[in-house]
Amino acid sequence: MDNTHITTDKEEQNQEIVLAGHPSGVPTADTFRINNIDMPTSEMLKDNEVLIKSLYVSVDPGMRGFMDKGDDDAAGNKYKLNQPITSRSVAQVIKSTDKTFAVDDIVHGRFAWQKYQTVSVDNIEKVDPNLAPISTAVSMLGVPGLAAYFGMLKIGQIKATDTVVVSGAAGSVGSIAAQIARIKGCKVVGIAGSPEKINYLENELGLDKGINYKQTNNMQVAITEACPNGVDVFFDNVGGELFDAILANINEYGRIAICGQIAEYNEDRPPQGPRPMHTLIKKSARMEGYVVFNFSDEFDDAKKQIAEWYNSGQIKYRENLIKGFDNIPSAFIGLFTGENIGKQMVKTGDSNDD
Amino acid sequence: MDNTHITTDKEEQNQEIVLAGHPSGVPTADTFRINNIDMPTSEMLKDNEVLIKSLYVSVDPGMRGFMDKGDDDAAGNKYKLNQPITSRSVAQVIKSTDKTFAVDDIVHGRFAWQKYQTVSVDNIEKVDPNLAPISTAVSMLGVPGLAAYFGMLKIGQIKATDTVVVSGAAGSVGSIAAQIARIKGCKVVGIAGSPEKINYLENELGLDKGINYKQTNNMQVAITEACPNGVDVFFDNVGGELFDAILANINEYGRIAICGQIAEYNEDRPPQGPRPMHTLIKKSARMEGYVVFNFSDEFDDAKKQIAEWYNSGQIKYRENLIKGFDNIPSAFIGLFTGENIGKQMVKTGDSNDD
Repeated sequence: MDNTHITTDKEEQNQEIVLAGHPSGVPTADTFRINNIDMPTSEMLKDNEVLIKSLYVSVDPGMRGFMDKGDDDAAGNKYKLNQPITSRSVAQVIKSTDKTFAVDDIVHGRFAWQKYQTVSVDNIEKVDPNLAPISTAVSMLGVPGLAAYFGMLKIGQIKATDTVVVSGAAGSVGSIAAQIARIKGCKVVGIAGSPEKINYLENELGLDKGINYKQTNNMQVAITEACPNGVDVFFDNVGGELFDAILANINEYGRIAICGQIAEYNEDRPPQGPRPMHTLIKKSARMEGYVVFNFSDEFDDAKKQIAEWYNSGQIKYRENLIKGFDNIPSAFIGLFTGENIGKQMVKTGDSNDD
Repeated sequence: MDNTHITTDKEEQNQEIVLAGHPSGVPTADTFRINNIDMPTSEMLKDNEVLIKSLYVSVDPGMRGFMDKGDDDAAGNKYKLNQPITSRSVAQVIKSTDKTFAVDDIVHGRFAWQKYQTVSVDNIEKVDPNLAPISTAVSMLGVPGLAAYFGMLKIGQIKATDTVVVSGAAGSVGSIAAQIARIKGCKVVGIAGSPEKINYLENELGLDKGINYKQTNNMQVAITEACPNGVDVFFDNVGGELFDAILANINEYGRIAICGQIAEYNEDRPPQGPRPMHTLIKKSARMEGYVVFNFSDEFDDAKKQIAEWYNSGQIKYRENLIKGFDNIPSAFIGLFTGENIGKQMVKTGDSNDD
């Protein structure tokens, strides 16, 4: 490998996207600002650093919480004003001082929203381009797919006889979660918010039933009708009143995997709702939250399994790919309008593999 | 055994206590009515039935839910108007047509609030008087003690390094739950509602700390101060705002055993509260309801273990014993005024063992 040449286009303007203001409610264009910045030079590269070029940027609802004001975030996830936003991204190595990463290697990690940047090798992982398309390293084979996998199998503990309900079922996590339940032989009902999504769930992903909550007056009754034997496992991406409707249908020993709560990410304080404790006692039911990194020891096996299902056609996966670095903010804002089918991604650059 | 003699006192008036009206909120004296009824005669005894005399009657907060109107109770637990209330009771066999039960045997089961009654042998179990005082068959060695045992060990899954908080810690379930956690080496904080109870928790039961929630302005802060390393397991008997205060202190991988919700038993509909989902995700925490009968296969072992702890002095147990059959209603109502320390019981008759 020739680690001396720099493939950055000297003519290209490097850019970053920073947090311009803490949003109140749903983020807007004013939440973000694009700055022109200097291109990193090879002289800037310290030991065990690589210079990378952004290829695919993932935007995820959970990032919304990191945009709030305050320092009460022990994990250090919160974005700082006038500093670049970070998110899971796929990039290409342009220059490396580390022998384990070569020029042109495809890597992923939590990178700044910058066209070019230098990162420590401690913060990057190689992408295996043979498993699946490289963009899936931060989608189907990344946090969303792994959240679906471990949430359904480890928290939901699905059995073939279970009736499983997935909310946000057309989304990046929900679509994988629902298909894993289908592969394991469960009866699967998916909830989503548009006729296109329902069509996707029923006719592309092969779920038993899709319910359009926006066109349903009484979700509790709709779930009862779709799940005449009750709900054994609820994979919750959404929260709010949808949760209540499904809890009312939960079976004895039911399990509720709390994966995400997109209905609440833009709220200033925890929303009020009926307390679920009585139902949990009456049904000996369980609700459990998790973050995917609890299972990091098993990531490699999970990725291989998901890729195997994908390559054999058992799992279908869509990315809603938006092109252009400067479209990252609008792609993120679009997450909260509920229009996307599949994983919202931004293609920020062309790799040598394309 | 001489099964032919009848030890019922022919002069004694048999009585029953029936549901006179569905309570709204906290039950009152008008919820109940005492009726004089005929004494069962030996001729009334069918095959595999026994005639029993009530000795001890347990009154429990969870019975409140069975007093509501409505037939939506698949388990058939709801009390019917003008029919006797039932609850876990200890009784003495007066006459038997079944060879496994002899006259003078002490038995327990869910019996009607009647001084004398006939019951099928399918609905009774023998009490071993050698394990502990016979009244404990429906208290420390009955549902309350078993709920504490399985809730703490199977749902809470306590480890010696855990900080454990128990609400309703001076009550029949909470006092056992807290002591089991103490025996297992946990740091244990108990919550109760009077100085007498706090004294009981700290000086009789040997908990690390008791918190009087009625004299505490900010329970969340009080829990933080009492549990500087956070809360690993919360054994919840109470629900409501106390739950919120403890949830705010829950540790990563925290477990919340939802045993009872006495704060809510008298509410007409599920109370509103802040939704716990965000915290559950953030902390990878779990809340789980259960009923003790899920573990009935393991009851015998659990009873032996609790009795062993009791007889070796590791578990202390108080019964708040009220005398007289006609005092059962007031003993039940007293559960909701929060004054009792230990298990509320009514002594309805004298056995030959006394």
